[in-house]
Formats: sequence, C-alpha cells, structure tokens
Amino acid sequence: MIKNDLFLRALKGETVERPPVWMMRQAGRYLPDFMKLKEKYDFFTRCRTPELAAEITTMPIEQVGTDAAILFSDILVVPQAMNVEIEMKPGVGPFLPNPVRSPLDVNDIIVPDVYEELGYVYDAIKLTKERLNDEVPLIGFAGSPWTILCYLVQGQGSKNFDKAKEFCFKRPDAAQVLLQKITDTTIAYLKGKVKAGVDAIQIFDSWGGLLSPTDYQTYSWKYIQQIIDALKDEIPVIAYGKGCWFALKEMSQSGAAALGVDWTCSAINARYLSGGQITLQGNFDPSRLYSTPQEIKKMTTQMIDEFGKDRYIANLGHGILPDIPVRNAQAFVDAVKEYKPR
Amino acid sequence: MIKNDLFLRALKGETVERPPVWMMRQAGRYLPDFMKLKEKYDFFTRCRTPELAAEITTMPIEQVGTDAAILFSDILVVPQAMNVEIEMKPGVGPFLPNPVRSPLDVNDIIVPDVYEELGYVYDAIKLTKERLNDEVPLIGFAGSPWTILCYLVQGQGSKNFDKAKEFCFKRPDAAQVLLQKITDTTIAYLKGKVKAGVDAIQIFDSWGGLLSPTDYQTYSWKYIQQIIDALKDEIPVIAYGKGCWFALKEMSQSGAAALGVDWTCSAINARYLSGGQITLQGNFDPSRLYSTPQEIKKMTTQMIDEFGKDRYIANLGHGILPDIPVRNAQAFVDAVKEYKPR
Repeated sequence: MIKNDLFLRALKGETVERPPVWMMRQAGRYLPDFMKLKEKYDFFTRCRTPELAAEITTMPIEQVGTDAAILFSDILVVPQAMNVEIEMKPGVGPFLPNPVRSPLDVNDIIVPDVYEELGYVYDAIKLTKERLNDEVPLIGFAGSPWTILCYLVQGQGSKNFDKAKEFCFKRPDAAQVLLQKITDTTIAYLKGKVKAGVDAIQIFDSWGGLLSPTDYQTYSWKYIQQIIDALKDEIPVIAYGKGCWFALKEMSQSGAAALGVDWTCSAINARYLSGGQITLQGNFDPSRLYSTPQEIKKMTTQMIDEFGKDRYIANLGHGILPDIPVRNAQAFVDAVKEYKPR
Repeated sequence: MIKNDLFLRALKGETVERPPVWMMRQAGRYLPDFMKLKEKYDFFTRCRTPELAAEITTMPIEQVGTDAAILFSDILVVPQAMNVEIEMKPGVGPFLPNPVRSPLDVNDIIVPDVYEELGYVYDAIKLTKERLNDEVPLIGFAGSPWTILCYLVQGQGSKNFDKAKEFCFKRPDAAQVLLQKITDTTIAYLKGKVKAGVDAIQIFDSWGGLLSPTDYQTYSWKYIQQIIDALKDEIPVIAYGKGCWFALKEMSQSGAAALGVDWTCSAINARYLSGGQITLQGNFDPSRLYSTPQEIKKMTTQMIDEFGKDRYIANLGHGILPDIPVRNAQAFVDAVKEYKPR
C-alpha cells in the first residue's frame, strides 16, 4: 500500500482533499544535487546505473515534495535498444550520427529482447521502489512512437522536425513499418516496467502537435492507442500530447486513465474537448516559473480553480526548465499542497 | 482596378468562382531563380534594393501563378530601423549580436521615422506595383510585436523562445514598454505601406502559439488589436497566428478582414472557433508538399471542400519549405485553380 496515494486516486477519478502534484522533468537540472551528479557522470551513464537513476528519481520527492516520482531515464533508451546509436551532446541534446533516412535504414532497426537490452531500467525501478519505501507512487514512461521517429529521422532536436515529416510523406510505407517496430518494442518495454513495479505509465507525445489532425491519427495516435490497449488493464496510463488539443476527444475514449495537456489549452477548453469526465493533468507554462514565488502561487491556485480539484493532477504543461530557481518550483508544489477549494 | 481581384473579393466575403490562392514565403528558396539572386546578393541587400525586391516579389506570380503577390522583405527590418543590429546568418537565420536582456536595453530601442529608415521598403512597393501592372493585388506585412520581441530578446530563432518568455515574466513592465515601441513603429510602418500602394496587410504572429491564452492576451493580442484598429478603415488586414487556435474567437471580433490558421486547426474547428462568418486563410501543412503532386492535388481539393469555396483563401499553414520541388508547389496552386465546388 502506498502511503500518499493522492496521485493514484486522482487517476481513478476519486474525490480527493486536494489535487496531487508532480512536475515533468522534476528530476532535472534545476536541482543543485542533480547538477553535482551531472558533473561526475554523463547522461546515459546516469540512465544506465540503477543506483544513480534511483538517487536522482527520489531527489524531487525529498527536496520539493512532489506526490509522485517519475523514473529518471530517457525516451531514447528505447531506440538505443533497437540498434540505433544515440549520443547526448552537452548543449545540443540528442544526436544520431546515422539517422534513419531510407527504407533500407528502417530494415536495420530491430525489435529487441527488452529484458536483455533494457534490464538496467528494470533494475533501476526495483531499486527506486525500495528507496521510495511506498511513500509515493512511481511513474514509468515511454515516448510515443511518432516522437521517437522524429528523433530517429531528424537525427537531433528541431523546431519543426521537417526531415521526419518529409520521410513520412515521401515514404509512408516505410514510416509505418518503423512506427510499428517502435510500438512493438515500447509495449514490451512498458510491460517489463509494470512487472518491475511502476504504479502508472505516462506516454510522452512531445511532437504530436506538429501534425494535422488527420496525419496525427495516421502517424501518431494509431500507435499510442495500441500501447494503451496493451497496458490499460494492468496499469493506469496517462497520455500526454504536446499541442494535441485537437485529439482530446479521441484520446478521452481510448482507455487512458488521464490526459496531459499543455498551457495553450485552457482548463475550460480541455474539459470541453475531452468530454468533461476524464482526469486531466497539466498545464502550467514552465516559463511562468520565472515569475516571483508570490505570482507563481497565485497563478497555480487559479489554475486549480479552473480545472477543479477532482479528476485533476497539477503539473506543468511541459518539462521544467533547467535554470528555474528551486524556490520557484517549491512555490508551485506548495501552492497545490496548500490548495483549499473555494 | 486590379484584374485578378479574387483575393480582394474573398477578403470582403464576396461569393467567388473559386478560392484565391497564395503561399506564405512564396517568393523563396524553392524557386531556382530566387536561388540565383541569393548567390549574388545577401539577404538584407535583397530586401533593401527595390529592384531586387520587386523582381523576387513577382517571381511566384509569373512562375507558379498565385493570385496575390507578397512583398519580398522580412519582419526584422522593423527592429533594424529601431536601432537593433540584426544579421541573417546563412544556415542559422536571424542573429542579434546584442540581444535585449534588460530594461536598460529597452531604453536604447527607438521609435524611428519610418520614412527615413524604411524608405527602401516603400520604394520596393512602388516598383513592384508598376511591375505587377494591376494583374494581382500586393500584400504588405509586418511581424506581430510579440513575435518581434521573441527575436529581440532571444537573439536568434528558437524552439520555445525561453529567454523571451523569461524576460516577459521577470520584467513584465519593461516587456510592455518594448512591445508598445514595436507597436507604434509597426503602425507607422504599415501606414506607410498603405500609402505606397499595397492592397492588403498581413500580420504574422509566428510565435503567439507559445503563450497560454491569458498571456497571449497580455503579451501579443493587445498589440495586434492596436495595429488592426489603426489600419482596418484603410485596408483589409489578415491576422495570422501560428498555434493561436485558442484566440480565434477574439480575433474574429477584431476588425480583421481574415484570419490565418495553421494545419493543426481543422477547417471545422477553425470555422467553429471563429464564429463561422469571417474569411479564413490556410492551412495546408507545408511538409505535405513533400508528397507526390497527385497526392497534393487530392489533399488540396479536400481542404477546399472542408473550408468551403467562399470566405476562404487557400494557402499553406506556414511558410513553404526551401527544398520543395517547384512542381509540387505548382500542383498545390493548380489544384486550387481547378477547383470545382461539389
């Protein structure tokens, strides 16, 4: 039994005293203790060393007091396991020396034995669960197949992932083969996470909002739905799609336990578009954490007023930015914890 | 009298035989003749030399047959005139050696005499009008004050313009002073364009979609509304906000003649959100021009079916990409011209 089960109760749609709160990328660079480990170990070493991953994962629980932990890892460990070389370049982000650019490249992508290739993730989950000692739930995650494809084809981060979209529109058949390989791997990977002990799963579709509603169905949602179908009877799944306001209705009927929304979709729009019943998660603009702690508290309270305290998980609308002062993140978390319904 | 007045009639909401068509960035790198001039003259030389600007502006009219011309220029000529040094770095885009980062920097920004600083734009308009010989209308444009601020503060293009947003949330008063200076300059600049002979104005809010609906009102829309108010009795104004679906209702009540939408907002959503009466412009995903000409024609026809032929201007949802084959752009334009209402 998890002692602080606010997050899990919100996922079930139960009435709660106040909304639970966590922050995307909460185990990240805004924490001084994270920066100390960052200086000593490179990115993928931190991901691959269960002791480090567990230590980083629990930092925000101990230091800012969020109501859920999310495993320190990266969406790109999945394509790494699929035979793709991926580096994390300081100041640049993900970089692929050999991006996928042709149907032949797609042939080289394998669907791996996840227990063999990603065992370190499962070890990290088990160790983290021990360290958390049932205080708060642990979230596991994966990128959406479309978002993974974006990196595989583009070869690095991008404003519009034009090369990824070019590949899909020029080579739709190869794109579908690639997306299915990623989907199959992701399902196996996440089933392993469930076995290892996570309490919920979040799927990050960070780049779904680059697609038109029609193309979103074809290149992104179809595959996310497969993942949800494969997991929903075992564990609550949160589907987060940045910029995917246009798909909220379909997403709400998918079997997902909750939907993540970004700050461009107001609470009233999100409730309306998702049909009003499903639990929503979001949507504080991460840049808004540059405001004063006092302003942050005021805006956070207003956000909860707008979403309502039930069927709601307070979060940012995307990952926390690296140079946010800890006291500002703390103001956000505290405002949720101090929330009194009007 | 302009011979092909389809575009102007669509802006007035009149019944037309078929929708007019033009493409954002239609005078751009996908045209081989543009590339020849690009090799000889740097970016701002092309903007500042009326003969070159006029030649480039008329290229897509002669070569792909769009129903409107848009002056070859850049949104950043406005801040250049405001005492800001801006370079266009090949392969990088705009670059500011001294970005605006403090209230003191804002003090250094001037509201210039636009006729003195931007006379070359007006000369280009006059020359272009001569060359166009009243065949099609000429569109003048400006960036929205928020979008200009994004570049001034960030110092270059960006995925999320985090430094620009940081500036606004840390220094809201200085941000408002800067936005008002940009607004005042833009109004004077566009009034000069009207005098010089443009037939319509488009305001590009390329980065409005990075803001929450509330912050959009505060940092972007408030200033666009000032610009529309100052111009709407003289000339039709098109307000284009990338990612600004959430503001379409307010935008539809602003006095703008038309609203530009991107491809993430379907025709049915755009009509619903904008109240159903105002002329809409858009919204083909520019990456979709990587498809085959046959596919492009099919999807373009479907787009018009969805928007309807009246109160509609066929366009892309953002600028055309540099490496699109001319025949693909041609397929898009032809599909609109061949459109037969069902």
